[in-house]
Amino acid sequence: MSNAALTAGGKLAGRILDALAEATTDAPGITRIAYGPGERFAHDLVRKEAEKLGAVARTDVAGNLYLTLGGSSPDLPAIVIGSHLDSVAHGGNFDGAAGVVAGLAVMAELVGQGIRLPRDLVVLATRAEEAVWFPLSYPGSQAALGFLDPQTLEARRSDSGRTLADHMREEGFDPDAVRRGVPGIDAGRIAAFVEVHIEQGPRLVAAGAPVGIVTGIAGGFRYVDAKCLGAYAHSGAEPRFARHDSVLGFADLVAALETEWDALERGGHEATITFGRVQSDPTQHGGSRVLGELGFTLDVRSAEAAVLERIEARLHEIFAEVGAKRGVTFEPGPRFTWGPATMSPDLIGRLDRAAAELQMRAPHVPSGAGHDAATFASAGIPTAMLFVRNENGSHNPHESMEIADLDEAIRLLLRFVTDFDNPLEQP
Amino acid sequence: MSNAALTAGGKLAGRILDALAEATTDAPGITRIAYGPGERFAHDLVRKEAEKLGAVARTDVAGNLYLTLGGSSPDLPAIVIGSHLDSVAHGGNFDGAAGVVAGLAVMAELVGQGIRLPRDLVVLATRAEEAVWFPLSYPGSQAALGFLDPQTLEARRSDSGRTLADHMREEGFDPDAVRRGVPGIDAGRIAAFVEVHIEQGPRLVAAGAPVGIVTGIAGGFRYVDAKCLGAYAHSGAEPRFARHDSVLGFADLVAALETEWDALERGGHEATITFGRVQSDPTQHGGSRVLGELGFTLDVRSAEAAVLERIEARLHEIFAEVGAKRGVTFEPGPRFTWGPATMSPDLIGRLDRAAAELQMRAPHVPSGAGHDAATFASAGIPTAMLFVRNENGSHNPHESMEIADLDEAIRLLLRFVTDFDNPLEQP
Repeated sequence: MSNAALTAGGKLAGRILDALAEATTDAPGITRIAYGPGERFAHDLVRKEAEKLGAVARTDVAGNLYLTLGGSSPDLPAIVIGSHLDSVAHGGNFDGAAGVVAGLAVMAELVGQGIRLPRDLVVLATRAEEAVWFPLSYPGSQAALGFLDPQTLEARRSDSGRTLADHMREEGFDPDAVRRGVPGIDAGRIAAFVEVHIEQGPRLVAAGAPVGIVTGIAGGFRYVDAKCLGAYAHSGAEPRFARHDSVLGFADLVAALETEWDALERGGHEATITFGRVQSDPTQHGGSRVLGELGFTLDVRSAEAAVLERIEARLHEIFAEVGAKRGVTFEPGPRFTWGPATMSPDLIGRLDRAAAELQMRAPHVPSGAGHDAATFASAGIPTAMLFVRNENGSHNPHESMEIADLDEAIRLLLRFVTDFDNPLEQP
Repeated sequence: MSNAALTAGGKLAGRILDALAEATTDAPGITRIAYGPGERFAHDLVRKEAEKLGAVARTDVAGNLYLTLGGSSPDLPAIVIGSHLDSVAHGGNFDGAAGVVAGLAVMAELVGQGIRLPRDLVVLATRAEEAVWFPLSYPGSQAALGFLDPQTLEARRSDSGRTLADHMREEGFDPDAVRRGVPGIDAGRIAAFVEVHIEQGPRLVAAGAPVGIVTGIAGGFRYVDAKCLGAYAHSGAEPRFARHDSVLGFADLVAALETEWDALERGGHEATITFGRVQSDPTQHGGSRVLGELGFTLDVRSAEAAVLERIEARLHEIFAEVGAKRGVTFEPGPRFTWGPATMSPDLIGRLDRAAAELQMRAPHVPSGAGHDAATFASAGIPTAMLFVRNENGSHNPHESMEIADLDEAIRLLLRFVTDFDNPLEQP
């Protein structure tokens, strides 16, 4: 697709993303640290672009930015389109920013086509979504809704070692008000929250579709410091019957969890099970060593809470079974959890309708990774997400989204917002 | 057993081992570096003790020490009892030294009881058996027989960084003569080589037997830097079908090799398969990461060369099978091998006879770890080994051999040498 075929909104999106990439380059890739200079630059840029379109800008006590294009019936709850503007270190330009910019593009199309919606359209740029900076789940969007756990303000940023409260204050915001739960927007005043985000997996690439409609965001649990404990021994000297081999115990665990995963999939359930770190002790391991300890992380995800519970229960059965068989023990260590988020069937139906009207193929896809949208869904706000086709995953400089594909999401979203107050026919 | 019940040889052995421990203490444990001060002290001590017994001492060009008690028919090939006097850093006092001292104790018993053997009895104290100092298999005993590969003289000692040739020269020996293959003893002049060594595993402890007769020394191969290679991805974003997960590939490899191990054991073969290191890349791994690389070592041992070949062949089949199933590849990296050594059935028969005559239970046990005896066996010299019961393995300060158990080995060996020229009845 040539650039000429893009909507005016799509062209604007491309220009803003180019400007962002240029200003936040940190070869390889770009870096926009949460509550750091790159995120600040991005917030300033999208504010200026929105103001050019006639939107009214304001920030909340945590620094989230609300860009509001007023509707004709401002008493109606708003449509909010939002995502984040921070990035991982040496990440790609599109993870987060593409969603905010898509919202601006929809706004630009409305203004350009002279369409005034009944409802306010709010483009929301959140803060600090990437957990690599603060070990938290979406503190920016949680603060936007006024329910950020005050304790998390003491979490420390991985690069500076300073607290979230410090960094908020340094950027000119008000962590004391965040602590008191002062919201940036009232959940009851949001008719729909929609987040556009690049897909971080290859499903849309595989399907040959530029845009997908997200069915749900997985929740999950993670053991970050689990261990299989056996007994160190000399490989040549210790007979097999006397071994307590943590590698064999770990391999059994991997196989047993995979069997459980297979069984879940046969039952029509979706889950993801990953060992993201496997490490023997460098001060103890060696060629002739039977390993007495193997450390690992285990990350389990599913959009269904019942599936997560089933895997957790099975995990502890496996620990006991393998422990007895191999003469090892498992120390799971601390457990972190995050809840799954269901996307609104009503909003999915409206996005399906918009796609059908545009004769656009927009397959349904799950989201295994977490997003700000999960915060809104968990607050009971009707929430939806669109994924944009993207090669090479995210969190790396090789993200590869075509502006033409983002333009398809912009067109779909434009149709969604203009049709929003036309009731959905029940099938 | 009280000390009073020991043979005079056993009491001498205890005194020499105590003196050795005192002089080479390096808390925790003892340290006798190959061609270092601790090994030098030990050689000097056993030489003095042997000379007190009337033995003639000489060293070869590599510093191996030969302590000869002359026989009545010196034209007959000698009986050689030997082991090494170096240790790992912070090791135990008995690994190596117990074997040399047992030889001296047999000599002391012969002298004390006024027994003159027909053959020369040589107690051999070798050099540099512990591969932790030089990354070589038994350079001392190989030099004793005149077939040390000259290139290995350039191997560097792990603590000093200086070559084996340098260290030999510094201790007053002649690496140039070693290079020319000047032997310390002619293989054709050895009727039997017997090594006494603490067991490094728990078989004798489990069997409740103080002494065991070794059936064979395992050979083996080792991949020290093997890798399972897949593709890094985000656990939540990458769908299962698209994964190239090196952890799943590795777990399959572990399971498949264990299945092969089971099949070998059902067929009556002995083998040992160990993964001594398992490591994801710390710069890449993390909780939400599908691992694109997992490094490991694989150590395989067996006393049967055919078993080693079978496992090697199966390993490469498994690499291909798992690779196809998981979308991963295996890079085995460098391969190190060492040959297995068969103990002489004739000498085992003679040791069995001696045990029967003494009404001593001396079960047959395999040696998974390597020993100097392997050098003599591989040179075609009839070779045997006795293991002495020992708790807590070796290469650590917690080795725990009772002198009363060593005394049983001394008594068995004394009977073996005095009966040596009585032909073994064929069953």
